[in-house]
Amino acid sequence: MTEAIQTLQDALSKFAKERDWEQFHTPKNLAMALSVEAAELLEHFQWLTAEQSKVLPVDTRDEVSAEVADVFLYLLQLCAKLEIDPVDAAWKKIETNAGKYPVERARGTSKKYSDL
Amino acid sequence: MTEAIQTLQDALSKFAKERDWEQFHTPKNLAMALSVEAAELLEHFQWLTAEQSKVLPVDTRDEVSAEVADVFLYLLQLCAKLEIDPVDAAWKKIETNAGKYPVERARGTSKKYSDL
Amino acid sequence: MTEAIQTLQDALSKFAKERDWEQFHTPKNLAMALSVEAAELLEHFQWLTAEQSKVLPVDTRDEVSAEVADVFLYLLQLCAKLEIDPVDAAWKKIETNAGKYPVERARGTSKKYSDL
Amino acid sequence: MTEAIQTLQDALSKFAKERDWEQFHTPKNLAMALSVEAAELLEHFQWLTAEQSKVLPVDTRDEVSAEVADVFLYLLQLCAKLEIDPVDAAWKKIETNAGKYPVERARGTSKKYSDL
Repeated sequence: MTEAIQTLQDALSKFAKERDWEQFHTPKNLAMALSVEAAELLEHFQWLTAEQSKVLPVDTRDEVSAEVADVFLYLLQLCAKLEIDPVDAAWKKIETNAGKYPVERARGTSKKYSDL
Repeated sequence: MTEAIQTLQDALSKFAKERDWEQFHTPKNLAMALSVEAAELLEHFQWLTAEQSKVLPVDTRDEVSAEVADVFLYLLQLCAKLEIDPVDAAWKKIETNAGKYPVERARGTSKKYSDL
Repeated sequence: MTEAIQTLQDALSKFAKERDWEQFHTPKNLAMALSVEAAELLEHFQWLTAEQSKVLPVDTRDEVSAEVADVFLYLLQLCAKLEIDPVDAAWKKIETNAGKYPVERARGTSKKYSDL
Repeated sequence: MTEAIQTLQDALSKFAKERDWEQFHTPKNLAMALSVEAAELLEHFQWLTAEQSKVLPVDTRDEVSAEVADVFLYLLQLCAKLEIDPVDAAWKKIETNAGKYPVERARGTSKKYSDL
């Protein structure tokens, strides 16, 4: 496990234990919370044009950064509960995606692999 | 930046460049994709009881692990575009949350900080 | 088209026109807003037990009702833009689901039709 | 209650009862399912430009229509469980929004009412 991630997970576990929040942190509830935070992140982009989304005002970027953190923190808590290593899972998925989306067929298209 | 995360981000950037997918990867679109993947993760838990969500069958856990990876990979791509360091943002957020949820008031309750 | 729904859609169209908001209301953005509101609805349930979710306190129920309205209003605006009749689409989907989930095989299980 | 909506809700209640699915349909789980379906709707739009989202190919529009139906059906089931009339709630919300977004201040801007 990547040390920086393990250290975050330990801090989150301590945070929840101190507040007796473990009773709320079932995988089901953590998956809900993750989804809610992803939508709060999305909210910042909903009325922006594609171009506007590339050059966020400083205060929007700070708010987005806080929502990114919320998503990341719930993802790490869910991973800890399910004993999933997010970095390992990520590399495995990149490999899967390389197989699903070969360069020559996927180039320049946003089609799903099943439609390539 | 944590090396394990930087290495993943570099691989994702290469993956997208090779497929000429950067045109699709605006921050707006990446935030949408992240939210869609968070819901695909959530889908695995929607009909489970709290207890069932704690002891997933092996094949469900593998599918959940792949969805966790998808969320993580889009989060990392969004962070790269917006130049947000997710580990730094996470620590900053933990500090903010410690201020919002002091142990003595937050213990054993799932109330929002504004209702404590 | 059901009259009650058409009347709501007309009111929403007038509301947006008066505020010159049609520029923001692309189907893409409306789908994002719908998803964001669905998550705000979800947020009210994230830490509740199954039992607690059945007996909401009055003020929570009022807040949930307002979020239900937000989801419904964006759904109606999206339908208006795409010329989809939500009641027709709903009946069609019930018919499809009846085919996918025959009573004798679907009884008492939350499995997806592809796993039945 | 609008008759077309009541008739749909009755059909959905019968559908769930016949399959003994009421055990799964807690308000918490229905809110999750609604959010998952909203994301499946969103998925169709994630890589489209604003312009492309306005002129969907026929088959995409049919798929979008089916996802719209899924969102609508879970919304109606949640409303039935919580005894919320979605049309009444919608009108109440339009009135609230008219107060929050007066024409003269909201014209041409996508700002949240709290920032107007």
